[in-house]
Amino acid sequence: MTEIPKSHPRYASLVLRERLVEGFKQGIVASQGLIAHGRGEMFDYLLGERTTKESRVASRAAAALLLQARHPVISVNGNVAALCPEQIVRLSEAASARIEISLFHRTDDRISKIQKVLEEHGAKDVLGFLPDCEIPGIDHLRALCSKEGIYSADVVLIPLEDGDRAGALSKMGKKTIAIDLNPMSRTARNSTVTIVDEVTRAIPELVKNVEDFVDDPEAAKKAFAKYDHEGNLRDIAELMSKNLGRFLER
Amino acid sequence: MTEIPKSHPRYASLVLRERLVEGFKQGIVASQGLIAHGRGEMFDYLLGERTTKESRVASRAAAALLLQARHPVISVNGNVAALCPEQIVRLSEAASARIEISLFHRTDDRISKIQKVLEEHGAKDVLGFLPDCEIPGIDHLRALCSKEGIYSADVVLIPLEDGDRAGALSKMGKKTIAIDLNPMSRTARNSTVTIVDEVTRAIPELVKNVEDFVDDPEAAKKAFAKYDHEGNLRDIAELMSKNLGRFLER
Repeated sequence: MTEIPKSHPRYASLVLRERLVEGFKQGIVASQGLIAHGRGEMFDYLLGERTTKESRVASRAAAALLLQARHPVISVNGNVAALCPEQIVRLSEAASARIEISLFHRTDDRISKIQKVLEEHGAKDVLGFLPDCEIPGIDHLRALCSKEGIYSADVVLIPLEDGDRAGALSKMGKKTIAIDLNPMSRTARNSTVTIVDEVTRAIPELVKNVEDFVDDPEAAKKAFAKYDHEGNLRDIAELMSKNLGRFLER
Repeated sequence: MTEIPKSHPRYASLVLRERLVEGFKQGIVASQGLIAHGRGEMFDYLLGERTTKESRVASRAAAALLLQARHPVISVNGNVAALCPEQIVRLSEAASARIEISLFHRTDDRISKIQKVLEEHGAKDVLGFLPDCEIPGIDHLRALCSKEGIYSADVVLIPLEDGDRAGALSKMGKKTIAIDLNPMSRTARNSTVTIVDEVTRAIPELVKNVEDFVDDPEAAKKAFAKYDHEGNLRDIAELMSKNLGRFLER
């Protein structure tokens, strides 16, 4: 891995980039995933590369939704597996959620490599390698999913998901929790709860909130009631717009 | 190449992404080029994924500058060669400009592959494989250039160029025409003319403007006089900020 000096003003961001390139070399990340990451980097730059108070509110609502689910599932793709496998496993334990590997650019090789990474971090019974169902309304390879996983889930966590697939899950009547750095994306807009934050910051925050709420359903209910999806996205877009405007003044 | 359904609302953008990944697989595009493309995608998203009237004004000024040059050169890197080789060749013919391959992550293998792609699209006398000069002030491998190309050029077109190199070319007294989606980048700010547009839209637009002006030097002169570099960049950054803001009104 390329050595990044800790003094670099964008150290955290550059370390993530290296981690992703490493995942790419190992065959976990698709080349399209590198491009998508670059895109996310710029939105994170506009966000100030930090977890905002808006995303904390969304994260608490997401934790509440996960805990009240009958059958929650965490959808994992190559970028997520390369960036934060250990945190995904912790979240699945804390929220009693199944993990399903679900790829936009699906190959069996990539799925088995991702499964191995997740298992090395303690995951058990990872779904996705042998899909037996399809999400209606999207083309075959992208629609593949597992009956005991995403297909029958009532709540699906979709970090870094494509807009078509996120929309198709909503149409199936599922509640979805998106983690997406673009507050204007279809994924962000069409989900039940959207955490606009970088995924390696968002997942640990979500783990913490799930652990906070697991024995306090009243607090969870309140957190969910407090969350305003549209307003939350609007506030974040406003913050980004302001940060962009700040550049103009220099 | 992965099949993208034409019905996908972001079809054009996804097709470019696939074209770049294809170029990556062929050894034309560097992995850093994939992430850089993603950053560009995000700015294009904020631009509305279309050629703005500001970029049309900049393109006309760029055409005028190319036509009044004594020795114009088009600098080509891996991303440019993967995305629009045929248009680069057309532009070099229309503007009587030499083509020089100039890579930030230079390898002989990549240069010869890019040269082959350009030649397949009709390019003749492509420079870059045997550099015999250096651009002063930048580190060795990135400084390499050709004496009869970039080194002696008076006007250099630099699509998707690094900020350090763009700055070094300006310091040599050359006029530069940048094509860059980030209106705040050092490349955008330090160039004589900056077209803030996606390169596969920008190059054909530039070809058209060169063809329009080739027999009308008066019109070209007027177009150049009309162009305000700082103001143009400011207007585009403002437009991006507004597009973010428009989301707030929905």
